Amino acid sequence: MNRSALVKLIFTKKTFLCIGLDTDLSKIPQHLLEKEDPIFEFNKAIIDATNDLAIAYKPNFAFYECCGTKGWNSLTRTISYLNEKYADKVFTIADAKRGDIGNTSQQYAKAMFDPAASGMNFDAVTVAPYMGEDSVKPFLSYPGKWIIVLALTSNKGAADFQFFRNADHRLFEEVLLKSQLWGTNENMMYVVGATQAEMLSDIRKIVPNHFLLVPGVGAQGGSLQDVAKYGLTKDCGLIVNSSRNIIYASAGIDFDQKAREEAAKIQQEMEGILNIPCR
Amino acid sequence: MNRSALVKLIFTKKTFLCIGLDTDLSKIPQHLLEKEDPIFEFNKAIIDATNDLAIAYKPNFAFYECCGTKGWNSLTRTISYLNEKYADKVFTIADAKRGDIGNTSQQYAKAMFDPAASGMNFDAVTVAPYMGEDSVKPFLSYPGKWIIVLALTSNKGAADFQFFRNADHRLFEEVLLKSQLWGTNENMMYVVGATQAEMLSDIRKIVPNHFLLVPGVGAQGGSLQDVAKYGLTKDCGLIVNSSRNIIYASAGIDFDQKAREEAAKIQQEMEGILNIPCR
Repeated sequence: MNRSALVKLIFTKKTFLCIGLDTDLSKIPQHLLEKEDPIFEFNKAIIDATNDLAIAYKPNFAFYECCGTKGWNSLTRTISYLNEKYADKVFTIADAKRGDIGNTSQQYAKAMFDPAASGMNFDAVTVAPYMGEDSVKPFLSYPGKWIIVLALTSNKGAADFQFFRNADHRLFEEVLLKSQLWGTNENMMYVVGATQAEMLSDIRKIVPNHFLLVPGVGAQGGSLQDVAKYGLTKDCGLIVNSSRNIIYASAGIDFDQKAREEAAKIQQEMEGILNIPCR
Repeated sequence: MNRSALVKLIFTKKTFLCIGLDTDLSKIPQHLLEKEDPIFEFNKAIIDATNDLAIAYKPNFAFYECCGTKGWNSLTRTISYLNEKYADKVFTIADAKRGDIGNTSQQYAKAMFDPAASGMNFDAVTVAPYMGEDSVKPFLSYPGKWIIVLALTSNKGAADFQFFRNADHRLFEEVLLKSQLWGTNENMMYVVGATQAEMLSDIRKIVPNHFLLVPGVGAQGGSLQDVAKYGLTKDCGLIVNSSRNIIYASAGIDFDQKAREEAAKIQQEMEGILNIPCR
């Protein structure tokens, strides 16, 4: 999905919500555990109940890998379902935080973007920048696909290295400055945690037009209003993720409808933000 | 496997070789493609032919993920085979470069270290440090397991951020300094590329006793002698990886024997290094 299609989706649906599919067998409703593939059934129900309120879904790979081959199969079924039933209607993000030497990143890119090889066809993948340009570039060789580079993350540990600074600026700013040269704002986004909303002004000085994927609203404590205040661009430029608050809104038989209600609250707030004139 | 068992393995087998299982369907011998699970059959043959010459095996996750669920299954079969047939005789490394917020790293740790959940039981996992302490710590909660933190990698892109410096030192040194406080030299190692051998003296000043996993010997151009010269400790302190040079030594029916010959050359060189007195 290219940038203009993504922007169109945002303004048509009046939302920039991404729903994180951090699907955990120990947290999903009991009645699903009787199904053959509870993780997929849960995701399918969540997607069917919320797809008009969200523009993106983001399976978090760790939650599938911890279930081994069976989990990887649930993941593949989830992305296939999104591709088949909601083609062009949602943006799909492989939240995998990958990155390795060139020949290895090439294989990771195949995993995320080449359905003939892996059975998976995401629009975007999150990548870790520590290993530099040749660890990131292989992901950019797929036309129409995106990478989302970790810049400033939402967790406490972000302070350990991301704020390491030279005379001019901090590591996360160095990541923004350098990586911009590797791709364009048509195939690269950045992860910026909502818990770091006050940093968004600094970040927007370096990447005024790139889309930002913003996790950390909700369970992690970030505020949507702050994120919008400092991060919004003319064409929105934000994808804000919420996972646990939405998908685990209820552990009962009504879990999908309760998830819808939570997503609707956020969509309403987002619609208000998108309606503010003169952005 | 604890440190003393690992060291014993090294001095008993007279080798500190790790064989990287970067198993690529397009590079393995044609005759294996007829088998039901060519990747596993290839790995099994390589392991059976080389296990007395190597102390570790390191499946590179990207090469399995690119084949989707089928690839993940080959990976699980490979680690299960190592666990069953070569328990306590080889050290196993999940080369996955994982790292995410705490609740997510916890799931990645389960994937690598909890066979009841994932079917996989590695001794160690490579982790990316960019997201800091809480992204790394969940992996350390498994007794007897190891994390191997990326410090200075073997690729060209290592220069992009790992050399970013403050007034005192560079990012990779900051990673070594800070991460040391999170674990001990009984459960943490570091990745230091063989192509950066001349940096090993600086690194040994910060981490004199930690084991280092050293990729980049062979196809990537690093020298074993240089690595040993600057990196060796009294109890060896090095695990040196070679992948392509060994596993793709031949694409013929004799691939496993040719792999053995390549591994034997390296083992011989390592035996010489381990025999040098007064280390």
